[in-house]
Amino acid sequence: MSAPDARRVIATVCLSGTLEDKLVAAAAAGFDGVEIFENDLIASAASPAEIRRHCVDLGLTIDLYQPFRDFEAVPPETLRANLRRAERKFDVMEQLGADLMLVCSTVSPDAVDDDELAAEQLRLLAERAAARGMRIAYEALAWGRFVTTYDHSWRIVRSADHPALGLCLDSFHVLSRGSDPALIRTIPGEKLFFLQLADAPRMDMDVLQWSRHHRLFPGQGSFDLPTFVANVLATGYRGPLSLEVFNDVFRQADPKPAAVDAMRSLRLLEEQLGLPVTGLVPAPELSGYAFAELAVGEGAGSRLADALTALGFTLTGKHRSKPVQLWEQGGARVLLNSNSSTSDSAAIGALAVESADPIRSAQRADAMRAPILPRSRGPEEASLSSVAAPDGTEVFFCRTGAENAADWLADFPGTATPLAPGLGITGIDHIALTQPFDHFDEAALFYRAVVGLDPEPITEFAAPFGMVRSRGVTDRGSVRIALNGTLVRRGEWAPAVRDPQHIAFATADALATARALHERGAPVLRIPDNYYDDLEARVDLDPELLAELRANSVLYDRDEHGEFLHLFTELFGSRIFFEVVQRIDGYRGCAVANAPIRMAAHRRQRLANTG
Amino acid sequence: MSAPDARRVIATVCLSGTLEDKLVAAAAAGFDGVEIFENDLIASAASPAEIRRHCVDLGLTIDLYQPFRDFEAVPPETLRANLRRAERKFDVMEQLGADLMLVCSTVSPDAVDDDELAAEQLRLLAERAAARGMRIAYEALAWGRFVTTYDHSWRIVRSADHPALGLCLDSFHVLSRGSDPALIRTIPGEKLFFLQLADAPRMDMDVLQWSRHHRLFPGQGSFDLPTFVANVLATGYRGPLSLEVFNDVFRQADPKPAAVDAMRSLRLLEEQLGLPVTGLVPAPELSGYAFAELAVGEGAGSRLADALTALGFTLTGKHRSKPVQLWEQGGARVLLNSNSSTSDSAAIGALAVESADPIRSAQRADAMRAPILPRSRGPEEASLSSVAAPDGTEVFFCRTGAENAADWLADFPGTATPLAPGLGITGIDHIALTQPFDHFDEAALFYRAVVGLDPEPITEFAAPFGMVRSRGVTDRGSVRIALNGTLVRRGEWAPAVRDPQHIAFATADALATARALHERGAPVLRIPDNYYDDLEARVDLDPELLAELRANSVLYDRDEHGEFLHLFTELFGSRIFFEVVQRIDGYRGCAVANAPIRMAAHRRQRLANTG
Repeated sequence: MSAPDARRVIATVCLSGTLEDKLVAAAAAGFDGVEIFENDLIASAASPAEIRRHCVDLGLTIDLYQPFRDFEAVPPETLRANLRRAERKFDVMEQLGADLMLVCSTVSPDAVDDDELAAEQLRLLAERAAARGMRIAYEALAWGRFVTTYDHSWRIVRSADHPALGLCLDSFHVLSRGSDPALIRTIPGEKLFFLQLADAPRMDMDVLQWSRHHRLFPGQGSFDLPTFVANVLATGYRGPLSLEVFNDVFRQADPKPAAVDAMRSLRLLEEQLGLPVTGLVPAPELSGYAFAELAVGEGAGSRLADALTALGFTLTGKHRSKPVQLWEQGGARVLLNSNSSTSDSAAIGALAVESADPIRSAQRADAMRAPILPRSRGPEEASLSSVAAPDGTEVFFCRTGAENAADWLADFPGTATPLAPGLGITGIDHIALTQPFDHFDEAALFYRAVVGLDPEPITEFAAPFGMVRSRGVTDRGSVRIALNGTLVRRGEWAPAVRDPQHIAFATADALATARALHERGAPVLRIPDNYYDDLEARVDLDPELLAELRANSVLYDRDEHGEFLHLFTELFGSRIFFEVVQRIDGYRGCAVANAPIRMAAHRRQRLANTG
Repeated sequence: MSAPDARRVIATVCLSGTLEDKLVAAAAAGFDGVEIFENDLIASAASPAEIRRHCVDLGLTIDLYQPFRDFEAVPPETLRANLRRAERKFDVMEQLGADLMLVCSTVSPDAVDDDELAAEQLRLLAERAAARGMRIAYEALAWGRFVTTYDHSWRIVRSADHPALGLCLDSFHVLSRGSDPALIRTIPGEKLFFLQLADAPRMDMDVLQWSRHHRLFPGQGSFDLPTFVANVLATGYRGPLSLEVFNDVFRQADPKPAAVDAMRSLRLLEEQLGLPVTGLVPAPELSGYAFAELAVGEGAGSRLADALTALGFTLTGKHRSKPVQLWEQGGARVLLNSNSSTSDSAAIGALAVESADPIRSAQRADAMRAPILPRSRGPEEASLSSVAAPDGTEVFFCRTGAENAADWLADFPGTATPLAPGLGITGIDHIALTQPFDHFDEAALFYRAVVGLDPEPITEFAAPFGMVRSRGVTDRGSVRIALNGTLVRRGEWAPAVRDPQHIAFATADALATARALHERGAPVLRIPDNYYDDLEARVDLDPELLAELRANSVLYDRDEHGEFLHLFTELFGSRIFFEVVQRIDGYRGCAVANAPIRMAAHRRQRLANTG
């Protein structure tokens, strides 16, 4: 029999909505319990006793009531008022059936810098709590007035020395201050009453603002949470793992998917820690793309077929039972799925990765709470596992050419079309998906936890229609997805070039491919002379190469590893284009610095098309 | 004859779109010239010569080409490459017809900390520029590697001592570092080649990130730009006033209104400096609200009429020629305008302030580039001036009871309805308008520059459906508008309570008004017991008062001045509700801390109504 999973808890403040919305979402995502954030309770029409019953019905425990602020190290008359306030909150906790209250270090101007007084008054509070069968967890806020570090809060708790007084550790407060988490091991586990977890991006800003607006779920930021939690577990702490994330985006998002995102983050963290997670298996190895699927409306289908033909692709198969075409060149496969209701649009509907074990890939996805998509299929057709990414893109796990029934290619009986000679395209280099800004962090975590891809650092660049955030997720070999999103909502204007997605094909010789494309009149995106004039000023390039790049609208980039030559096509339908890329000497990345050039050119194409 | 206005210039980087979009927007807003941001040019398909002709056609000069980076204090071989790069850019400038290039202090790892070398190399660059009839403006970036302050850049320029080398001052770089702007007066005016202006909110964060994402147009942030510019003008500088604002929101907004916003900011700054601004007159004094107008669809009209009746209002007049009703109580007047095409909606369509001189108010609005709205009116009807606020709200300037034809009330012949007794409402206390987040700063500037209201500090609070930013604009007496907006785009979920707007009426006795409302079964929003339990724990209130507040769903707040009692109605139509407020002893503000309670209650009302 395997060990049980750790108890998973989420603070209601992580999620959007009323308390009722939050509890329902937390339960649906599979959390065992909640921290009740006081403001959520105050705005609720349900009495604390009703909330208790509601939680029991949902299978949720109430693990913490929080926060109680500005209690300790105050003059006697303030202490009296604070104890009166605490008793009223104990009344609420009693009705809730909660026995643990979070007290965070004071930020009050009334407080004094006196650890002994703080310990004495916290001991008094713990006595009051104990008399009612409750306990107090004291937490150092990173921006507390006097107590800002966990070791300082521990000195006070130790000095107060009351069994009903312990510590609450919050990874944000510890790691944002740069405190050494290894010292946590010196604290006895039974004095750690509670553990709150939050990740965050590294930011050089006021810590209070950083904490209130930019916390993330574990695995979405830059903090080393596995090491932090390992230190906590080394003390003997066996309480719940609880998420407390203040984030502007999650605060306004539908709480149901946000709670699933939170649950996924916790399971990934537990896996990293070597803790048992029911149903979870390691991510099978990937070996490239099986295909990319474009969902096309009526008008766009023939235009995309023309474009693929111009790019040197051949229609090699048609699906047995669905209106789906298979186009191939080299190792690149593109499906055109016209099973779509929209009229003149095209979008990347699905991507498929080659997995060493598609069944186990799907099993992992399920354990990571990825929504498994139902599929209708004919009796002879391959059983394909697919899940929905946060933006709705369908992700398939395939093993093309497998000997059993799992080979999806068998569902595409060949057409009689002879294979066109091709233009040097050898496979799919990467797929670029535009993410709504409020799914950006969730998407990176999804591809990491579910598919097993590593997120690269986030890049931001100024584009003609707003700042763009870009992040690659990759297996450092065969699969790369570029997640792009605007930093803030993009305006209502320039809608035609707002959210393009694209497939980038690999070639071993971008200039040769480009020349062939131009020869056959393919819709290669025209890059302006100003770009090449600037390139000439910036980079010491061979004049002949520069002339070739300019003549063929091929763009250029270099990094510390090598060089990158790439070209774009025009836009098809409302938001699809293609790219052809050549990587030389191990160049990484996707030349995001050239993206603004492409965006401006696409806008010109649009304006020219519409008149 | 009056002095001419200062030349007004805008950097293309302030605006969204392609270079062509930006130039058209700048010209339409009335700018005299532009700074061409290099990346905008590089992405353009127009040659520099074509851009020059385009600018001439639009009536724009090209006042600066920018930026040239990482030039100075480098080893000889890098210097050679940098001079080669500069000559290529001089080629571009020659074609553009631009004679001034911005060189910003280096951030290059190749550079060395050697002011003499920097001066020597900048002198060399200035010689090259002079040979082509051009000049160099050197600017200290706040995050430069060695040169970060304007006085440091001035020492280098003085030491280089070349007539074609001068300084560019940027208010952000000077004021973000806390440099003393008074020392600017020690620089000879003829060595100040260019002046860039940007405001910003005070933020405790990395200065590069602050600059790249959060700059604002003058008057939208916290910098003391009038003093800064006064110091610059004291040197004898008579060059253009040029805006250079990097802002995530403006970068993605329609450039035409953004350019108008920019122009308005510059005119307000010029007024503050006592510079001539053609057509501008001081803002006439205000003395309260003339009326608030609700645009109502078919279904909402009768519900709102019922609600106003329940609140003690009487229908006192109907417009001569339009489907507009006048409702009154005490000094509060509400117009219900059913001249709307939507079916079941209601929104604040207009607000009207009492101006000591409506004609001059409109004249100022025009000079401040507020869009004057066309009005159809009958031959006998009052001529009312109105302008459109950034969110589309119509703003009227009235003089109710004026003896001439300007009294708008004369257009509402009285009905025979006898005046109802009323419930103690004496006037409009404030009007709350929900702003799209990307018009928030623009709106505050609009009400300041156009209407003459002072913006109060921005408040941010956590609400059930996302962080909310709130800012009052007020004449500190009779007129107050609360501008509210979500910090990020609000999600697709919980749409019914997404963007409510409301009118807050004043009463001298909120509890008496509340009792009367409950007696007549008015739709007062029910406030939960949990709120009052928390109020009791937090505040030492008279138990009888607390019981009265609780029984009547009246909320409570206090500040350092006094107390605030208020109640809300339920939502009408899709986004309108009313508030009744009592201010005691000079309480300021609008009790934003209670807004989350109201939002959760409105969501409950919605859920109860729909299911």
